[in-house]
Amino acid sequence: MGRVFLVGAGPGDPELLTIRAARLLAEADVVLHDALVPEGILRLIGSKAQIIDVGKRNGTKFHTQDEINELLVAYGRANHTVVRLKGGDPSLFGRAGEEIEALFSAGVDFEIVPGITAAMAGAAAARISLTDRRHAASVVFVTARRRAGADEIRWSKLVEAGSTLAIYMPGANYSELCERLRDAGLDGSTPCAVVSAASRGDQQVLWTDLLSLPNHAGLPAPSIVIAGECARAAGEARLPLDAYRHLLAPAGQECEYMRE
Amino acid sequence: MGRVFLVGAGPGDPELLTIRAARLLAEADVVLHDALVPEGILRLIGSKAQIIDVGKRNGTKFHTQDEINELLVAYGRANHTVVRLKGGDPSLFGRAGEEIEALFSAGVDFEIVPGITAAMAGAAAARISLTDRRHAASVVFVTARRRAGADEIRWSKLVEAGSTLAIYMPGANYSELCERLRDAGLDGSTPCAVVSAASRGDQQVLWTDLLSLPNHAGLPAPSIVIAGECARAAGEARLPLDAYRHLLAPAGQECEYMRE
Repeated sequence: MGRVFLVGAGPGDPELLTIRAARLLAEADVVLHDALVPEGILRLIGSKAQIIDVGKRNGTKFHTQDEINELLVAYGRANHTVVRLKGGDPSLFGRAGEEIEALFSAGVDFEIVPGITAAMAGAAAARISLTDRRHAASVVFVTARRRAGADEIRWSKLVEAGSTLAIYMPGANYSELCERLRDAGLDGSTPCAVVSAASRGDQQVLWTDLLSLPNHAGLPAPSIVIAGECARAAGEARLPLDAYRHLLAPAGQECEYMRE
Repeated sequence: MGRVFLVGAGPGDPELLTIRAARLLAEADVVLHDALVPEGILRLIGSKAQIIDVGKRNGTKFHTQDEINELLVAYGRANHTVVRLKGGDPSLFGRAGEEIEALFSAGVDFEIVPGITAAMAGAAAARISLTDRRHAASVVFVTARRRAGADEIRWSKLVEAGSTLAIYMPGANYSELCERLRDAGLDGSTPCAVVSAASRGDQQVLWTDLLSLPNHAGLPAPSIVIAGECARAAGEARLPLDAYRHLLAPAGQECEYMRE
């Protein structure tokens, strides 16, 4: 009997893979990966491995979640070392729940290898302490996208809780997001940072506030919106430092962040 | 001018360091680390580096946060490559906010290198999808410990939001935690997983529910409590599989989780 590893690929920079993830990619017999996993990470896969792109965004080949589950079980039963490579961290917003159940039901041995999720990579890029003790005691990771029929997100409760918000898959329509958050009671002056392609060569960071957010063109996916006082602290911390002044986003404008 | 790296050490297993973190440890001139960072990770530090334990738990030497900030600035100005090694991820519950401000104010170049935080390592250990789309659209990371004078955590809002709760630093007094969560409206039947020393050799996972949580002895720190329906799914997924049955925690009992 083989073993299936649900492995977090992290935010995109191959250096932000865990050592364990890199080792498993080199050793795997079979790798099934999402469409979002960048080329630089796929290059770490050993030359003898079978590589299957199960990404939903690939128009030429479509794998349903059930098909992916069946592939994982079949390869695991065939005595293979199987890596299921998922963007970010496997335990967040990635349908790992269904894959875990399928593997358990089939009696296939498996292990979850955590990865750097977008909120952490985004916070690092924007230099934000998500739970700066002077501003917030908690942070909530939430996705703006929900499948049809799913419970509505209770945005007003999230806002009332006073948590920093880390919003995954915010989409490119910031007007809609802004309206939803303002309807939920979030103050228009709340600082927001948008991080696109965190850790990658084309990384961008936009600092603004909730009211001004819709004035900006949507940054490309994958992106994350961080909303809360801790993002203000990050913006203000930049102010005294002349060397960084040109990198600050004046209200109503975007800026491209440095990628050293 | 040198550069300061605020580096996440992850949950403890050296294999769960990022490749970048491991490389920086090998190359650093100076490493300032927390008390919680395990020996196996400190061994990755290059032989010529100066190593400073700034951990607050070390009774023989006490560094205030201001002193740590000053050390970071001083070594950064002295043209050193400085690694500030923090448990888990630097952007979560680690006073990175103060260090970021100090470095910005002093004009010292710095970078944040994200790490695997305890909630992700804990979810991986307990095989829980924190945001299983069938159960929750969000997860909140919250600490049960707050400094004196800080705003109270609005637990009832967090509960009403329907988020999975990932509770850092839950302490060993589960009665108090249980009471607080039940007062906030969390149902007694809510599944809970407690993960102690996630990813380490002495890792333990306890599955229970909120009502039964106080019947258990507190697991050793560092630990995390994951509360929410997604933890039930993880527990039930185990049931069909005889091979794992001995690892299940019957109500009111603890179990030691496999560490393969």
